Amino acid sequence: MTIHDYLQEWAAEVEKTLDEVLPATGRQPASIHEAMRYSCMGGGKRLRAVMALAACRAVGGAERDALGYGAALEMLHAYSLIHDDLPAMDDDDYRRGKLANHKVYGEAMAVLAGDALLTHAMEQLAALPEFYPVTLITAYRLMNEVTRACGTQGLIGGQVMDLENTGLPADAATLEAIHRRKTGALFEVSLKGGAMIGGGKNNELAALTRYAENFGLAFQITDDLLDVVGNQEALGKETGADARKNKATYPGVHGLERSRQMAADCLDACQASLSFLSGETWPLQQLAASILERDH
Amino acid sequence: MTIHDYLQEWAAEVEKTLDEVLPATGRQPASIHEAMRYSCMGGGKRLRAVMALAACRAVGGAERDALGYGAALEMLHAYSLIHDDLPAMDDDDYRRGKLANHKVYGEAMAVLAGDALLTHAMEQLAALPEFYPVTLITAYRLMNEVTRACGTQGLIGGQVMDLENTGLPADAATLEAIHRRKTGALFEVSLKGGAMIGGGKNNELAALTRYAENFGLAFQITDDLLDVVGNQEALGKETGADARKNKATYPGVHGLERSRQMAADCLDACQASLSFLSGETWPLQQLAASILERDH
Repeated sequence: MTIHDYLQEWAAEVEKTLDEVLPATGRQPASIHEAMRYSCMGGGKRLRAVMALAACRAVGGAERDALGYGAALEMLHAYSLIHDDLPAMDDDDYRRGKLANHKVYGEAMAVLAGDALLTHAMEQLAALPEFYPVTLITAYRLMNEVTRACGTQGLIGGQVMDLENTGLPADAATLEAIHRRKTGALFEVSLKGGAMIGGGKNNELAALTRYAENFGLAFQITDDLLDVVGNQEALGKETGADARKNKATYPGVHGLERSRQMAADCLDACQASLSFLSGETWPLQQLAASILERDH
Repeated sequence: MTIHDYLQEWAAEVEKTLDEVLPATGRQPASIHEAMRYSCMGGGKRLRAVMALAACRAVGGAERDALGYGAALEMLHAYSLIHDDLPAMDDDDYRRGKLANHKVYGEAMAVLAGDALLTHAMEQLAALPEFYPVTLITAYRLMNEVTRACGTQGLIGGQVMDLENTGLPADAATLEAIHRRKTGALFEVSLKGGAMIGGGKNNELAALTRYAENFGLAFQITDDLLDVVGNQEALGKETGADARKNKATYPGVHGLERSRQMAADCLDACQASLSFLSGETWPLQQLAASILERDH
């Protein structure tokens, strides 16, 4: 099986799980359920979810056991994108090649759809022991990890720092601090949480946390590189947007060549961390290898 | 001790707990911690929190054991008010006699401060067993109850219905459906959750749920009445705002006299439900009695 097949197969399972756990559009109030599904279904590679599944496998567990957890992570990711795209925030009209949530449903509904996806993700986490082989104590620890990853030291803090530094002279430390929170925190909790569900030992959780830190950084650097050199069609959003918005980027701070090297170094560190794991690691190995080749 | 003293004493304890659990403004990123504290500290009667404490007491527990839970409820309440006040939503400039969050910190920060309070409330719920005599299974059940109360069948759903029905001809059923979600759901989970922490039996939880439903309705009716007949200074916000915004209200649908009678009937139902409880019920009894006399 290639990593492409692995990603496709499990992304489809994540999609199915999301379809099951998101409120049906037939349910009242229908408008918000539509808005939630618009941004949460049928889009993206489900990278955060699939990495949770792969981490579960990498410590000896089964991918399937982390599906509910992966779905919760995708809801959190979708919530953060909806709110980030709002006119008062990054003011983006497009996301994943389609109109941003607020362009379709209006600002009020977009705020509420984000709120609802965040809330529903937490509900999903709290329900894991009912539907998956996840013990109460593990669900409890996951809740701790995830809420911290999403809070002012994680996702939200990263967005705050991003907004506050837009237009300011960029420095390397701030740039990394922003992305460790904005992108890294959710990747970390994906891998660590997936491994917790798989019964990973502490040294395995630590190894996967290192993998996640480096993967997240490499992911962000290639994202920034794509914004400069990618093509709009493959990316599903406008290129050059960061520069127009005066956002600090890796190529902007470090230059193209050095940025590419940094990403490559991160991915080497990813590979090195995998030697500490007791389960099947080829999906994580291939995933890290594929990042440099991504075109969207 | 009068109910006034009881409310004051415990509201002060809730305030102290919030001060302890909210991130310090000295912590980075400082701006979001300031914005969170601006809307969450130093305001309101802490009714949702104090009712959780009183419910804990009413089933034989100690108020103090529900303080962390009460603080989480107040964060959730503050989050919902910040987002409700946004220009795209209810567009309110004032709240509790001071400028709305977005008027002070801007829209982007207000969205993020709301997100952060919601996230932090969940983090706080997940941390209850570490700091309070709350078992893991109770924390887990609380998380289930609270996320449902805050979701599209609760708080968020109520706000969606409110927005969608603004300006439409008001009918009694829609009005009640909105307020059961928008105000009622959080009161219900306050009382039920407080009782769960106090070790309440199922029939006690059911009785407190009835109390909460009726209290929430009476609270909303008097809120609507105050908007018509109250004075702006005592209320801390403009009166007549509902009418200007074409919001459905109880006096608008049922008339002043019938609305007053409905509130009185609800409060009778509150009192009746208290006979099923094994603990000290005078605070809940007095609280229900005091609702009709509120002037803000």
